[in-house]
This record gives sequence, structure tokens and C-alpha cells, in this order.
Amino acid sequence: MKLYSSPVAPSPKKVLVFISEKGIKDIEVKDLDIGKMEHKTDEYKRIAPNSRIPALVLDNDNVILETTAICRYLECLHPDPNMFGENPEEIAQIEMWYSRISFELMMPLMHGFRHTHPHMSALENQNNDFGLAQRELAVKSLQYFDKLILNKEFIACNKFSYADIQAAVSLQFLVRLNRIDINDYQNLSAYINNITSRPSFSA
Amino acid sequence: MKLYSSPVAPSPKKVLVFISEKGIKDIEVKDLDIGKMEHKTDEYKRIAPNSRIPALVLDNDNVILETTAICRYLECLHPDPNMFGENPEEIAQIEMWYSRISFELMMPLMHGFRHTHPHMSALENQNNDFGLAQRELAVKSLQYFDKLILNKEFIACNKFSYADIQAAVSLQFLVRLNRIDINDYQNLSAYINNITSRPSFSA
Repeated sequence: MKLYSSPVAPSPKKVLVFISEKGIKDIEVKDLDIGKMEHKTDEYKRIAPNSRIPALVLDNDNVILETTAICRYLECLHPDPNMFGENPEEIAQIEMWYSRISFELMMPLMHGFRHTHPHMSALENQNNDFGLAQRELAVKSLQYFDKLILNKEFIACNKFSYADIQAAVSLQFLVRLNRIDINDYQNLSAYINNITSRPSFSA
Repeated sequence: MKLYSSPVAPSPKKVLVFISEKGIKDIEVKDLDIGKMEHKTDEYKRIAPNSRIPALVLDNDNVILETTAICRYLECLHPDPNMFGENPEEIAQIEMWYSRISFELMMPLMHGFRHTHPHMSALENQNNDFGLAQRELAVKSLQYFDKLILNKEFIACNKFSYADIQAAVSLQFLVRLNRIDINDYQNLSAYINNITSRPSFSA
């Protein structure tokens, strides 16, 4: 299998952490240079028509796009350690926290970054007012999740899961890019430090 | 089990279709009136701190928030008919198309609606320019998916799945609210008509 990746984007990082947690060895990683628009070439669009990274090309040449789809595929092939839950309530809780992190925290942080950061001016139809409003929403969400994560090692089910990868990688990349100081959110900061100190994050 | 729902919002509709497809009978449905802000009351926030609908309250009083989390929980309890895939490639394809529909089609349509429609002025910090830009993106996506769905009965794996519920319900609600005529997209229109003519959509 071949994974199209990028060292500067959060989504492929989530897949790389997932692969490392699972101890999967048979995936070749091909880095694309987003700065050089290598994800916008006709060649890559034949693999990923939406130009998004990551993409996983299977041995039968079928392509799986979208971070969570790739991780769910790998979970089927390598079920241990489990990342998406082992019983109905766990499965629901992990999906729920994955969704809440995505919509309440990651999306406003992503919009805040994409719509206000000078580095994104060539890649995004920027709307500064929208970006600032989303950044404000993100700050409120950071306050909410900072309380919520107090005394919790993991976001869902008292176990490390895909929801922690989603939370920690998103925050690690996007808080700083919004020029927000994560140290203003001490519980979240401790949570991120704990999750990202796992060996899979530096693999 | 008790489902907090609303007849005017797409997300709870997805759960209701899912429940009907599965033939599940033991869920009490409680409608909230969004116009009267019943989803913003302190009482409902004790169930759903993010004020979102739907929410599923289990018999042990645990709460599952988020549409997909609720559906995955119900899939565990009622595995037939299967909606999330039965083998690794199906599971990945259904998740992939669910994600692509969500990010490429549903999100720009939702932003187009929320940021430009007069009905949303009380509920959304509207940014008209952003709404119009998102509506433009949505039109491009509709053109793309219109080609893609040609001669296809279902969006993923030649079988009815959760990805079809996501696609058909989102389009059924949101295209019209963007004052876009779905008849301009004949293949998509035929696809939506076919999916939404299933008995589960009028249950």
C-alpha cells in the first residue's frame, strides 16, 4: 500500500500516528509538497480528484480518500490495539467525541487559520471577518473543552482512541496557527502534552 | 430509548430514516421546537450541552450526541440491514463517501444557507460574503457530483448505505434553502428522487 502524505498538514499526521500505534509496516509513504502545489497536479488528481491529502492506494489500485476512511480500513486489517471501540457504547462514545472535537473545536480553528493567516492567502478565498468570528468561537470552545478534560487522561471511554488522535493532532497544529497560546488552557495543554508524548507521535 | 428530534432539521431526519430502515420500534421520539428555541433551554442543555439535535438517551440514562454516533450505536444493536459496510473495503468506501458528501457538498450548502437566509439571522452570526462564496463552492460541487452519480443508484458500493442517507437528506433540505433548483442537476435529482422514495423517508 502507498500513502500520499504531507509533513505540514494535520490530516496525514493523524494517519501516520494511527499506523504507528498499530505497528503497521507495509505502507510506503510518499510526501507531497503543498507549498509547490504538488497536491493540485493532474497526476495527483487522478488519484485524489478533490486534491486532498492523505490518500491510500491499495495493492489492487483502489484508492481510499479521507483520513477517517483510511484509518477505519486499517483498523479492519489490524484490529489491535482497538481505536474505534469494542462494544456499542464505546463505539458510540468514540464517534461522538470525534464528531464533537471536529465540529466544535477543529472546524472553527481551521477556519480561523485559513481565513486570517497570510500563509493561506494563495490557497483560500479568505474572508477576514469570518475568520475572526470563527477564531472567537474557537476560543469559547477551548474554554469549554479545557474544563471538560480536567482530570481526564483520554477524551472518550478512559482509553486511547481515534478521538484522541483527532483532538491532539488538530490542537497541536491549529492552536498555534491561530496565534492562541495553549498555555492559557492548562488542562488541555496537559492533555495534549500527554497524548503527543506517545512514541507514535514522533515515529 | 428516547430520541430528541426536530421535524425541520436534516440531522434528526437522518436518524429517523436510519431507524425506519432498521425497523427499530423501541425508541420514543420527542420533538423540540427550534423556532421556540427549545434546544437552547437549560433543561435540554443538561442532555445536550452543545444544544444540538438529535440526542439519544439510553435506558441507562447515558446520552449519545451526534447523528453518526447515534446511527453507529443502533447499527451495533440492529446489524441488519447493514448500513456501514460488511468488509474492509466497503467500510472504507462508505466512510469515504460519507466524508466527501459532508465536506464537499453538505458543508458549503449549510454555510450558504446559514449565512445568507433571513430565517437564520437570529441563530447565526451571519457573514453574507462568506455565505455567497460557500454557495458558489456548493454549485461547483453539485456539478461535480451530478457527473459522478450518472448511472449510479447508490453513492457507495452499489448498495444502500449510511452515505446515501447523508447525501439524500442533506440535499433534500439544503439545496432548496440555497434557492438552487435541483432540476439543473438531472442525475443528482434522479438519485435523490430514487433514494427519498424509499418508505423509510416518509415513515
